[in-house]
Amino acid sequence: MTNDIRIDQLDVLGVEDAEYVVSLIRTIPDFPKPGIHFRDFTPAMTDARGLQLMLKALERTLPVPADQIDLIAGLEARGFLLGPALAAHLGKGFVPVRKAGKLPPETIKESYELEYGTASIEIETAAVHNGQRVLIVDDLIATGGTAAAAAKLIESAGGKVAGFSFVMELQGLDGRAALGDHPVASLTVMPA
Amino acid sequence: MTNDIRIDQLDVLGVEDAEYVVSLIRTIPDFPKPGIHFRDFTPAMTDARGLQLMLKALERTLPVPADQIDLIAGLEARGFLLGPALAAHLGKGFVPVRKAGKLPPETIKESYELEYGTASIEIETAAVHNGQRVLIVDDLIATGGTAAAAAKLIESAGGKVAGFSFVMELQGLDGRAALGDHPVASLTVMPA
Repeated sequence: MTNDIRIDQLDVLGVEDAEYVVSLIRTIPDFPKPGIHFRDFTPAMTDARGLQLMLKALERTLPVPADQIDLIAGLEARGFLLGPALAAHLGKGFVPVRKAGKLPPETIKESYELEYGTASIEIETAAVHNGQRVLIVDDLIATGGTAAAAAKLIESAGGKVAGFSFVMELQGLDGRAALGDHPVASLTVMPA
Repeated sequence: MTNDIRIDQLDVLGVEDAEYVVSLIRTIPDFPKPGIHFRDFTPAMTDARGLQLMLKALERTLPVPADQIDLIAGLEARGFLLGPALAAHLGKGFVPVRKAGKLPPETIKESYELEYGTASIEIETAAVHNGQRVLIVDDLIATGGTAAAAAKLIESAGGKVAGFSFVMELQGLDGRAALGDHPVASLTVMPA
């Protein structure tokens, strides 16, 4: 299929490097079910240059200045792929937001709606201290439901949401509307 | 409970920094079931200094020199927390080893035995090229079953296992024996 991925804030890398990263994002039609186009950014991580470029782009497009971020949170499982690497790169700590039941006690839980049913995510209660400013990182924003739940979780723990960074943003699903007034960065944009 | 975690290869950091990291590893008795002591290293990631120190220790204790490693592979989900950050730090690419059914086609699968039943893990077929030398990273080695399955997966894809790096090693479970002759680094050692 033709490449329908738009270089959005990834343009901070310059055209050549941005196109290089986009060329590594794979589109799999009709996966996991008919009508869905799965966007796979793992080949861009497996490529050493691709991984460096994604981290550089995430750093350059931070939705708030790095000195206004205390912690980075990432969502299981694909948000774990870039979140801790970005945290290490910026000299911050990393908070894993896990699917319910994986973390030892004590935890704070937040539930959110899926197309069918609900899901729950958790963080360790001690992970976020009062007033800490947390950047939430994930690979993809679609409807924004999971990211919004992560934001509630951070706030329940006493933290403040500094903003959101995504590698890929699906168009037409109104995902940003679910994130309130928080600043959002997304490296690339593509049809849902 | 008393801290029964032994500074093993983590001694590359020097005593003060090694003890600092160990102080951040939390032990939860009787989780997820009676008799099991769960070892939680996520507080060491949430601490910015702890995260830097773990990456520094993983780099300094690589089981083979960095120039003999082409790729780093990490196991879902906790192996994703340090694997990509180490890969980025060393200028390598990262291969996610996922639970079966999560990756889009084409994949290579490997099954292994659990206490009750079996589990399967997968990588994308295109992720590892012929002859590439792959370091396998995970948070914990217990019986070594999952790590051994990951090694078979890398070899099925045409890669070579360069070695293994773990943050924590449980004593008395003979985990290293499951890994054959491959070189192994583990930062800390503790009773199972």
